[in-house]
Amino acid sequence: MREVVVEQNILSRNDLQAERNRGFFEALGITAFNLVSSPGAGKTSLLERTIHDLKEERRFCVIEGDQQTMHDARRIDATGVPVIQINTGNGCHLDARMVHRAVKELNVPQGAVLMIENVGNLVCPSLFDLGEKQRIVVISVPEGDDKPVKYPTMFRTSHLCIVNKIDLLPYVEFDMEKMKAWARQVNPDIAFIELSVRTGEGMERWYEWLLANS
Amino acid sequence: MREVVVEQNILSRNDLQAERNRGFFEALGITAFNLVSSPGAGKTSLLERTIHDLKEERRFCVIEGDQQTMHDARRIDATGVPVIQINTGNGCHLDARMVHRAVKELNVPQGAVLMIENVGNLVCPSLFDLGEKQRIVVISVPEGDDKPVKYPTMFRTSHLCIVNKIDLLPYVEFDMEKMKAWARQVNPDIAFIELSVRTGEGMERWYEWLLANS
Repeated sequence: MREVVVEQNILSRNDLQAERNRGFFEALGITAFNLVSSPGAGKTSLLERTIHDLKEERRFCVIEGDQQTMHDARRIDATGVPVIQINTGNGCHLDARMVHRAVKELNVPQGAVLMIENVGNLVCPSLFDLGEKQRIVVISVPEGDDKPVKYPTMFRTSHLCIVNKIDLLPYVEFDMEKMKAWARQVNPDIAFIELSVRTGEGMERWYEWLLANS
Repeated sequence: MREVVVEQNILSRNDLQAERNRGFFEALGITAFNLVSSPGAGKTSLLERTIHDLKEERRFCVIEGDQQTMHDARRIDATGVPVIQINTGNGCHLDARMVHRAVKELNVPQGAVLMIENVGNLVCPSLFDLGEKQRIVVISVPEGDDKPVKYPTMFRTSHLCIVNKIDLLPYVEFDMEKMKAWARQVNPDIAFIELSVRTGEGMERWYEWLLANS
């Protein structure tokens, strides 16, 4: 029982900081998105391509969360936008305090789109509000169509589900309609965009969504 | 600082229970494996096929860990071996106490091979010893070749790395040698088996390893 109480304390402390972040973003007209997924679903590639294609339309800033390495930050850095890497060590998620510090260090400008790439993990990041406007869960076709029921908290708390790697649909078993039905069971309001960052198929719909929501 | 102390208490309590599990397994000649991976890497499919092919050679019992659903347990149940599902709710890993309870409930017989399928998560389960003989990390080709450096604790604590979905190698970017070099950086002793559960390629080497180690 003691662990549960501690968990509640950590979470309620996080919720307060997340609301503070939300206020900070509101004041500066910053739109923050929290990108969550399994390891290797393609969050960094999605960001690379998106920033490359939309950097004339929006001012992007990026926070990269990973247990270790600067790999992802270096990939984003190559796109020419401000980026900061948070290494969580043994930590399994970003929390609102880490984001608060990173935002200050990045000096995120007024009107920017702040992309927060969370640690690759479908469990723990679902519990930590970062103060984002919208949470985007990225799943990829080779992971299988049952993720929404096996990791329901993540799908319940996400606004948009991006289904990546649709170019692999011919080679794996993945029932798109079944996946969507399962996701709607836990979250009737969730939206879907199917795409392949690799081939570019479906990217236009994502760009429309992003521009409409920022 | 307070969270760190709490984490240490939880971990040291877990380590004691894990040693107790280890003693229990030793006394009954039970060989326990802890299977860890990202969501959707193919742990359940690997177990299904393995049990189907080796059930004349070994007595299998299975513990299934998931946030929600009985899906995986039902798949294993169809193979005819004893299985128990642990739903962790918001929990992100199995711990030694859960395994202890499940082993009692399953009534795992003398000489059995106990397959513990952990929650799909490359971060948190790495910190929790379950009392297993060996930890097996399953990665799949579409996740990318950089997982060992991004999730080093998991690779440092695993004895064997199974690389699944090699039938998808022609369709994605994945440098097998780079992945292995990265994994050896964090764990020079880690072994590798490349296979595709779907096509059956490479399964023989896994079966040899499993029979030699149980």
